[in-house]
Amino acid sequence: FQRVMALVDELRLTESAPPDRRDRPVIEFRSPEELSQLLPLALGEPASDEAELLQLCRQVARYSVRTSDFRFRNQLYGGVDGYGLAGALLTECLNTNQHTFEVAPAFILCEATVLAHVRRLIGWSSGDGIFAAGGSMSNQYGLALARYHRHPQVKTSGLFGLRPMVLFTSEDAHYSVLKAAHWHGYGQENVVSVPTDECGRMRPEALSAAVERVLSEGREPLAVNATCGTTVLGAYDPLPAIADICQQHGLWLHVDACWGGAALLSRQWRHLMAGVERADSVAWNPHKMLGAPLQCSLFVTRHDGLLHQCNSAQATYLFQQDKFYDVSHDTGDKSIQCGRKVDGFKLWLMWKAHGDSGLESMVDTTFAAARYCADQVSRRDGFRPVLPPGSDAGQCANVSFWYVPAALRGQEETPEWWHRLSLVAPRVKEAMVRSGTLMVGYQPLPHKQAVNFFRLVFTAVPPLGRAEVDYMLDEIERLGRDL
Amino acid sequence: FQRVMALVDELRLTESAPPDRRDRPVIEFRSPEELSQLLPLALGEPASDEAELLQLCRQVARYSVRTSDFRFRNQLYGGVDGYGLAGALLTECLNTNQHTFEVAPAFILCEATVLAHVRRLIGWSSGDGIFAAGGSMSNQYGLALARYHRHPQVKTSGLFGLRPMVLFTSEDAHYSVLKAAHWHGYGQENVVSVPTDECGRMRPEALSAAVERVLSEGREPLAVNATCGTTVLGAYDPLPAIADICQQHGLWLHVDACWGGAALLSRQWRHLMAGVERADSVAWNPHKMLGAPLQCSLFVTRHDGLLHQCNSAQATYLFQQDKFYDVSHDTGDKSIQCGRKVDGFKLWLMWKAHGDSGLESMVDTTFAAARYCADQVSRRDGFRPVLPPGSDAGQCANVSFWYVPAALRGQEETPEWWHRLSLVAPRVKEAMVRSGTLMVGYQPLPHKQAVNFFRLVFTAVPPLGRAEVDYMLDEIERLGRDL
Ligand SMILES: Cc1ncc(COP(=O)(O)O)c(C=O)c1O
Ligand SMILES: Cc1ncc(COP(=O)(O)O)c(C=O)c1O
Repeated sequence: FQRVMALVDELRLTESAPPDRRDRPVIEFRSPEELSQLLPLALGEPASDEAELLQLCRQVARYSVRTSDFRFRNQLYGGVDGYGLAGALLTECLNTNQHTFEVAPAFILCEATVLAHVRRLIGWSSGDGIFAAGGSMSNQYGLALARYHRHPQVKTSGLFGLRPMVLFTSEDAHYSVLKAAHWHGYGQENVVSVPTDECGRMRPEALSAAVERVLSEGREPLAVNATCGTTVLGAYDPLPAIADICQQHGLWLHVDACWGGAALLSRQWRHLMAGVERADSVAWNPHKMLGAPLQCSLFVTRHDGLLHQCNSAQATYLFQQDKFYDVSHDTGDKSIQCGRKVDGFKLWLMWKAHGDSGLESMVDTTFAAARYCADQVSRRDGFRPVLPPGSDAGQCANVSFWYVPAALRGQEETPEWWHRLSLVAPRVKEAMVRSGTLMVGYQPLPHKQAVNFFRLVFTAVPPLGRAEVDYMLDEIERLGRDL
Repeated sequence: FQRVMALVDELRLTESAPPDRRDRPVIEFRSPEELSQLLPLALGEPASDEAELLQLCRQVARYSVRTSDFRFRNQLYGGVDGYGLAGALLTECLNTNQHTFEVAPAFILCEATVLAHVRRLIGWSSGDGIFAAGGSMSNQYGLALARYHRHPQVKTSGLFGLRPMVLFTSEDAHYSVLKAAHWHGYGQENVVSVPTDECGRMRPEALSAAVERVLSEGREPLAVNATCGTTVLGAYDPLPAIADICQQHGLWLHVDACWGGAALLSRQWRHLMAGVERADSVAWNPHKMLGAPLQCSLFVTRHDGLLHQCNSAQATYLFQQDKFYDVSHDTGDKSIQCGRKVDGFKLWLMWKAHGDSGLESMVDTTFAAARYCADQVSRRDGFRPVLPPGSDAGQCANVSFWYVPAALRGQEETPEWWHRLSLVAPRVKEAMVRSGTLMVGYQPLPHKQAVNFFRLVFTAVPPLGRAEVDYMLDEIERLGRDL
């Protein structure tokens, strides 16, 4: 065990090595079949001895993706903040469950403090909140509150026999709303996908029209899910106009700021989220841009007391009312979970360590790298932005572009040409993964008639400068040029 | 940061100190108000320096509950297995998300291996599964599959206009089913609470009658949630009889083995779960009895392919079908989460380290301690078991009892007497928490007309013997004798 710990130490040190250490690949790729051969996966008998375990851990680490390497740009998360990691390790060692003050006194207070601080950033002086197991679940909290707020009787008698209720979300929004709509009993037909503009922002007039249409069909508009920082294009939906529509029709406004919410921390960028104070609820994932360790997702609402009324089940074995301390600190009954990992403490410790201003500069550095990248993409030969020129200023730290190999340049852009371009990103991706020099995501956006393009996303850890951005674009060029 | 790490090290070592080290209290209790004074909780400016951060961590650790101390018997989890912890720290350092093979190649294979091994233990040769953020969520997976299996169109059109669907669960079952029933749109009225026998086991004839009644009311019976190891009394529902009823009426059988599922690992105790192979789905929390680090909860089903059909949303940015490896390893679309913590690896590493037989002996030791405790409770003056004599043999590692102070012994058991007895457990609990010598949960069970009683639960880490059990009972006696 001591040696496993030593290995963990060894790993951690390497992980936090300076970003210019490119002596190790970001991934040492093996196919599922090869990896199954390399790793002695099977369980049963006999038990492995210490030496074997150490070797196993070393192999697992070796074939895992080094997400802390700056060349890992594949998802909306990446490297992990050192203080956040310290917080994570501490809570792992203490193995605490965050349901009552009784078992998690200090962590309960830290969670409450950080939630209140975030609510203040949003512009609310009261309200409530909870940390959840990821943004998909935080979004579900928003939907659950929206329904309970309008129809508390659904908690007792369900949706049967009711008029269909409808959720509105943009065509560029995250799929978690669609998944939640199934579990929550709405059905995906009752999620209206509102068209977006060429940057991926919800069109308010389209939302208005959609609400009217739903009303005329005899269905009941319930809630709007607006996004601050869409997953692919990084769009911020126009909250003031959306809030007006919600107000007019009495709809709950949930803001999915899982990705783009970090803008709140920055005087330079929080204008992107103007109007967020008019939301009923907000979800934000500090484990994305800010580099809090996975999982770290928070849900806040400006409605005081609603979370408890909506979700409580009053289990007598956990939430005894005859305890000898103020049981309002037993937050567990607000949750849809029972046991709940201590995620709030990680963010609290990061906030203590960096302060408001330290977090702000992490966000500013991240946006600056993204803006530099967007600018390069608009200038470099062979790179072609997906968004219209100049529109990057309103986006989150995403840069979307096609790479056009030399053989495809200067040709007529027929359907056949686009088809050939659509094959480029997957092939470049395969090449980068096999060589371990970079990992960047790609995807098509069918509703924008966009074939496979790259999405380069920027996160705060490790901090990225121009040299790293240049490296990434050079590498894509190197691998794609001759396709 | 290095010093924060050193502190983490220091903590871990103390946490895993031998169980007889009683030089530190299990908790150093402060009220919420006192603790808010002691901890500099506020966030903002200025940032704390390293020395302050270290001090903060030390204080948070000091006022946190030492769940790894054998005197922590307050919940269904406790100390953490050293190998599991090593696995947790490794995944924290690697900061990996478990949604695609691309970003988590080794972890995806470990998860698949451990899920298949558990399915084999249950008795299934095929099927599917996933790790979830706790047992409440694992149970939700069961309910989601039950509905999708019968009514796939609910995924598209929702529950509106349908006949009410009904879930059956015992009156002693965990409240997560009730919470899920709200979120999933059933409403809590459509959860039928089936009566249990005096040990807390679902009565099959009562289930039969309940199904008939629901049918006669024009509602639609959908699924039964049977429990293996109820939260308070530790009852195992009689699966064969319940499975017969499910078969007769075409109901989905979900088994909540979150607490008692560890019995599967033991030749001596797996008879408690006879019939589990007839279930459609099973939830089990290795973070409970087995001491895997929180959170570690798994969901398995014998239906191949259903999890994907039910939950997929085919996000193109994550689950591209034109990848260069076999994308059936991209398990993320089976999940209701998007990002998902790597929980399976912790259990996989524990299994490698202990082997089947090592885990078996952990379970056997745990049950033996519980049986010894139950025996002592039935013999000791002032201790009074909640369950009828001899019935412990069929229960999980829970021991439920009243402690009757000397002043209450040998008296007529009037309502007033029971009322006075109901005040004993909270007062003893307060005394133990304030002195930091023990933490044991208590609760009433109104449906059994049982006023506040203690629930002593046994978990595998640290291993407990007779000396520790004697200490616990002595301590309750010491604190309660003169009340
Ligand atoms: C029987 C049972 N099922 C499910 C759960 C929920 O598990 P979790 O706390 O991981 O959500 C519990 C928790 O105590 C339980 O006792
Ligand atoms: C906009 C947006 N919302 C929600 C989520 C879901 O967050 P999580 O992965 O924590 O469930 C994501 C994930 O990428 C996202 O991009």
